[in-house]
Amino acid sequence: MNNIYHYLSEVLDLPLDIVEKCKINFSVQVAKKGTFLLQAGEVCNYTFFVEKGLLRMYSLDQHGKEHVIQFAPENWMISDRSSLFFNENSHFYIEAVEDTEYLMLGNNFFTELSVQFPDSVYKIDLLLQKHIKNLQDRVRALLSDTAEERYLAFIKMYPDILQRVPQWMVASYLGITPESLSRVRKNLVSK
Amino acid sequence: MNNIYHYLSEVLDLPLDIVEKCKINFSVQVAKKGTFLLQAGEVCNYTFFVEKGLLRMYSLDQHGKEHVIQFAPENWMISDRSSLFFNENSHFYIEAVEDTEYLMLGNNFFTELSVQFPDSVYKIDLLLQKHIKNLQDRVRALLSDTAEERYLAFIKMYPDILQRVPQWMVASYLGITPESLSRVRKNLVSK
Repeated sequence: MNNIYHYLSEVLDLPLDIVEKCKINFSVQVAKKGTFLLQAGEVCNYTFFVEKGLLRMYSLDQHGKEHVIQFAPENWMISDRSSLFFNENSHFYIEAVEDTEYLMLGNNFFTELSVQFPDSVYKIDLLLQKHIKNLQDRVRALLSDTAEERYLAFIKMYPDILQRVPQWMVASYLGITPESLSRVRKNLVSK
Repeated sequence: MNNIYHYLSEVLDLPLDIVEKCKINFSVQVAKKGTFLLQAGEVCNYTFFVEKGLLRMYSLDQHGKEHVIQFAPENWMISDRSSLFFNENSHFYIEAVEDTEYLMLGNNFFTELSVQFPDSVYKIDLLLQKHIKNLQDRVRALLSDTAEERYLAFIKMYPDILQRVPQWMVASYLGITPESLSRVRKNLVSK
């Protein structure tokens, strides 16, 4: 459990005494590959911070096909924010793609942090704005980017995930068929 | 210029004296149909609040095809938040689809509001969370909903826009061809 402290002190820029105070609140959870941390129909009560391993969030369509919304490797957070914030039943599944060590941050984790340490408000707001930026860009890419452009953005965002998940999962995230993904990768190799 | 005051007092729940203070800061802008409020390559410095009329935000792909990200009729706000918050050049165009009366809210409009009136912090946070919820749902829908499901969600979100914009613009928002949109509408009529 070192990543979260590094995250709090380096990314959120919290002073060490605040980070030390946080330490008593964390306990590492372990999920075996294939375990669900959230299932559609349930309310999502946590944001999951990945210490080690890999989580993914996906939806199931009416034909039972999976659509990957997000991957979360080490140091990423993953959550159904709609369900978390508005207490609605989730449309999503969050599953461990690998054996995973993670922390469960409650809905008010960041609010409490900003009350305890008001200087962190700006950094926490920045996190939220980055999340909005990523989502907005994902909408734009799904509407207007080619398969190759989406693939190149993917390997930039998740440099090592290609080696950790099956091809169909990457294709699902990109919103293209596995055949299109193969074609894109072949074309890029021959360039 | 009544919508913004209604919005501030009813939606954000601000007391009247705060709303009165805000009044001196607003001046209504007018954009003729076809005018651009933002063009790709520029930095977006404002959130636009629509008093009357209709704005849309779209991107252009490498083939010159337009992809509509969002519509903003009366009482909606529209902005490229990535550009606004991170001061980056925008990938988007914001255009008046009808003759439009709008207000320009600066980057720090809501921050200043929450400083002047701390009780509004929660409501402003709620706005941000709703925005995240909408974006997350748009990603999910683009990946996994059928054309019919996307269309039904569209008319629920924007009840009167169908009568105000050409069909191809709706199809572009939905990420489907105009032909698919015609098919969906015919099928729904015959149900």
